Amino acid sequence: MKIIQWEPLRDLCQKLYEAQGMPADEAFLVADSLVDADLSGVESHGVSRMPIYMKRIEEKVVTNKCRVEVEKEFPGGLALNACNSMGIVAGVKVMEMGIKKAKESGFAFITVSHSNHFGTAAYFTRQALKENMIAFAATNAPSTMAPWGGIKAYLGTNPFSVAIPAGDQLPIIMDMATSVVAQGKIIMAAKTNESIPEGWAINKEGVVTTDPKEALEGTVLPFGGPKGYGIALLVDILSGILSGAMFGPHLNNMWNDFENPQNVGHCFAILDISKYIEVESFKSRIDQMIQEIKTSPKAKGVEEIFMPGEIEHRKSMKRREEGIPVSSVVYEDLKALAEKWNVAFTI
Amino acid sequence: MKIIQWEPLRDLCQKLYEAQGMPADEAFLVADSLVDADLSGVESHGVSRMPIYMKRIEEKVVTNKCRVEVEKEFPGGLALNACNSMGIVAGVKVMEMGIKKAKESGFAFITVSHSNHFGTAAYFTRQALKENMIAFAATNAPSTMAPWGGIKAYLGTNPFSVAIPAGDQLPIIMDMATSVVAQGKIIMAAKTNESIPEGWAINKEGVVTTDPKEALEGTVLPFGGPKGYGIALLVDILSGILSGAMFGPHLNNMWNDFENPQNVGHCFAILDISKYIEVESFKSRIDQMIQEIKTSPKAKGVEEIFMPGEIEHRKSMKRREEGIPVSSVVYEDLKALAEKWNVAFTI
Repeated sequence: MKIIQWEPLRDLCQKLYEAQGMPADEAFLVADSLVDADLSGVESHGVSRMPIYMKRIEEKVVTNKCRVEVEKEFPGGLALNACNSMGIVAGVKVMEMGIKKAKESGFAFITVSHSNHFGTAAYFTRQALKENMIAFAATNAPSTMAPWGGIKAYLGTNPFSVAIPAGDQLPIIMDMATSVVAQGKIIMAAKTNESIPEGWAINKEGVVTTDPKEALEGTVLPFGGPKGYGIALLVDILSGILSGAMFGPHLNNMWNDFENPQNVGHCFAILDISKYIEVESFKSRIDQMIQEIKTSPKAKGVEEIFMPGEIEHRKSMKRREEGIPVSSVVYEDLKALAEKWNVAFTI
Repeated sequence: MKIIQWEPLRDLCQKLYEAQGMPADEAFLVADSLVDADLSGVESHGVSRMPIYMKRIEEKVVTNKCRVEVEKEFPGGLALNACNSMGIVAGVKVMEMGIKKAKESGFAFITVSHSNHFGTAAYFTRQALKENMIAFAATNAPSTMAPWGGIKAYLGTNPFSVAIPAGDQLPIIMDMATSVVAQGKIIMAAKTNESIPEGWAINKEGVVTTDPKEALEGTVLPFGGPKGYGIALLVDILSGILSGAMFGPHLNNMWNDFENPQNVGHCFAILDISKYIEVESFKSRIDQMIQEIKTSPKAKGVEEIFMPGEIEHRKSMKRREEGIPVSSVVYEDLKALAEKWNVAFTI
């Protein structure tokens, strides 16, 4: 385990993508999203993804220059094609288009086909906060989760994020996998040889397991049983089926298929608060809600009641000061990438 | 327990509302929604609600004629005021407006303030199916659920529904409370003196309870822990805060406050599939997904894998044939209402 300062880490990642021919601004976005995830304590979506992202670009199964094409446009939304770009860069561009659309129409719902893994969904939804907009982002993912009552992976962990601006309080930012945990956490546990809690996953026979490697051969469980299964299904329908991307088990695998683009699908929604209600009124009501919840009586053993996103925000502030703990496996991966791509290893 | 045929039951309920001065078409909608819930096995939102709905109209704390005013209109949506109408009638009218809007704009997101309990959310989302649209409906509700880590009710059970059209297969229809169960199920258990499963609710000291009466004094638990808490919060923000309605514990109680309108808030979203993708392509992809999931290998002891809404559909078909089981408490309530309002008791 090494402690690495976030800015040098981001610079290194950016330079690595530039060495692969990615434009500097795009390389910055990918590096920024990954380091932002590490800052927030979401290591599963942090710089540990560098080797696989870079390998997919190297194998030309993902492009190194982003292009987003408008396939359909109408007042309430857009149907877009991400042309096999990096998901993170495409997502940022889609949000920019969506914010513009929401300014005109009040609300925009956008589908995106032919994309790739887009990192943390909250990286996009937060883009809308400064515009006083509420944003939603979701993506499908290769299948890792059985339908409720089944044993064979069909749905992905299909995460979604929502960001809601506040006034004096922190914005409310939720970002959740529709599985009990993100598969990235199981991948991380397998990488670092740690066991996983019971209830996260079943093995390929359908038996609950605490071995991350067995879990990766089996399927993760939806959160909240059949309700989480329903939400995972919904995310796949809106992101995969409606966009014209792949869905369910037809989504190609990021980790072991270097021939076929993944054809991941996303969906985004952006809502301009000012069209519905005065922004100041909205913000004071949100602040009131947050204050009331934060000062609500606590259950025994609970020190503080948190709003969604608050724990991640606090961790991010701390890690900006103190640095990011990077596992030695990930550190060595980064070192090897720097050597391979002839980039100075400056962390 | 009596077995009652659904059409005479619906007629009786309609006539009861008409006796209160409600226009026949509106009385039909309320009666139809309640009986539809009973047909689907959602007795908590069925004709057991007749006494409280009628009492609120009698006390003039809910109007007997529906009026929905447009406060703001823009291409992507509407901000509406339901003027303290019956929630079920308002919801149907809002969906009609939303379907029209979605035909023009592709997508419409609608907030509604000054409404009341709107029955089952799926009653509205199903309206969009014949138009080849996807619909979403959600509502806030008086507080019954503590924030995660808390013991005092702040959020309502804040349910939502999504309906998705299919081709040859049944449409996918989800309708879920963001609590482990709808509070209506606990009210129903209290009415019929049955105990509730562990994990549904905590009592007022924060201890898990199986006594429905204790549970009603305490708080119900969110589904999936902190994730369900986040979704309940989101529903309240979009339905309550954004619409300008009440939110959290400020929502007035339906059961014991006959002075103040509830000022419930809802939100609806309607998506015109044809704007995003060819409807036939969407439907064949949904059918493929449903077939693949239905034929997926099953866990031990599981006889069938269900899509959301399938169990309710099957129950509804069965009860249309065989009649609806109505508890003697509910039966006597209906009889008393018929006597009071001088309506022939024809069930």
